[in-house]
Amino acid sequence: MPANMMENEAFTAFIFYGTLLVLKMYAVAIITGQVRLRKKAFANPEDALRRGGLQYHREDPDVERCLRAHRNDMENIYPFLFLGAVYSLLEPNPAVARIHFLVFFCGRITHTAAYLLKLRAPTRSVSYSIAQLPCFSMAAQILFGVIRHWC
Amino acid sequence: MPANMMENEAFTAFIFYGTLLVLKMYAVAIITGQVRLRKKAFANPEDALRRGGLQYHREDPDVERCLRAHRNDMENIYPFLFLGAVYSLLEPNPAVARIHFLVFFCGRITHTAAYLLKLRAPTRSVSYSIAQLPCFSMAAQILFGVIRHWC
Amino acid sequence: MPANMMENEAFTAFIFYGTLLVLKMYAVAIITGQVRLRKKAFANPEDALRRGGLQYHREDPDVERCLRAHRNDMENIYPFLFLGAVYSLLEPNPAVARIHFLVFFCGRITHTAAYLLKLRAPTRSVSYSIAQLPCFSMAAQILFGVIRHWC
Repeated sequence: MPANMMENEAFTAFIFYGTLLVLKMYAVAIITGQVRLRKKAFANPEDALRRGGLQYHREDPDVERCLRAHRNDMENIYPFLFLGAVYSLLEPNPAVARIHFLVFFCGRITHTAAYLLKLRAPTRSVSYSIAQLPCFSMAAQILFGVIRHWC
Repeated sequence: MPANMMENEAFTAFIFYGTLLVLKMYAVAIITGQVRLRKKAFANPEDALRRGGLQYHREDPDVERCLRAHRNDMENIYPFLFLGAVYSLLEPNPAVARIHFLVFFCGRITHTAAYLLKLRAPTRSVSYSIAQLPCFSMAAQILFGVIRHWC
Repeated sequence: MPANMMENEAFTAFIFYGTLLVLKMYAVAIITGQVRLRKKAFANPEDALRRGGLQYHREDPDVERCLRAHRNDMENIYPFLFLGAVYSLLEPNPAVARIHFLVFFCGRITHTAAYLLKLRAPTRSVSYSIAQLPCFSMAAQILFGVIRHWC
């Protein structure tokens, strides 16, 4: 690895958690496919035809749930990949940075578990809110860093 | 901030507008939640149960509108975060770069306002198209930069 | 272009294919708009009103298909933009890196063609799976790189 990037401890921690979260999203996609096969509910007629007939071209509440979990990941994990990268470039205190990433990581893992396992409300929305805290913190630090640089 | 990155004025402007747009997306998510509570329309039965009963596990046109606005942001703001970062690395003229980012930023803010406030067509689609112009320009400059480097 | 970034041949190949894939996603968005106009199926009442009346505020299977293709791109191309960038920073063998990006690129182009042209199953899901292989490979190399750095 190029010394300059890996010397930045915050950046190293960021790419570690960011990659794990991308893999977690891939896992949700794979689970969605498994649920489609198990419940025989396909979004495309060509898939249904291959799996028994057009009657399986239909919606299913468990498939919809997986799709909502995946969509929520796209709404939140992708912005983290941007904010976390830029925040790491600000050379934050590595321990503080690691706490930011870890809180987000745990919040999003819990969010997915709460979604797919249908945990009682408000488990899912509390996980979502906790994961947003480091994101707002990173966004604020980025904006202050830029404004300070401009002044 | 590391001198090398912040010396790049285009990059500094990019992370400023990029972060503001991510915060704008978070605002749409928060508004969606508020509309769900106000209209009593929840995507998950466990949320509906907590808010009065399963009859509130239902769709609502205003919630759907928020979801479409958010989705359109994902379709357009995320690619900007990629194109803008790479374009900034090409060391463009800082003033020209700032115009690219500002046009995109204003286009997307107007797009969200037009969507959520149900402004008359074609306000929303015109905002969308204007915001795409700097994206196509950045994509073209990236491709030309790479091809020139390869030749 | 800054010498340091462009000297990294893997990174140059990455931004080339990444930008082409973003343009491909824009093409899907444009096709969606054309299908909406041709089939007269608009997601928003204000658009329908401008195009002939509220009866055209409706869903259409071909529009839904475009939306699913676009969503699948968001689920897969955005993570590639993260993984590919970080993987390139690991200074991989340029030829090996180029194969990773090319497999992903061809897989996603085929995926979109299979989706929009309604090719027989399992063309679409095979393309999706092939495109995931370099992503899992890059994710594994990133994680091993970080862990090796930590040990």
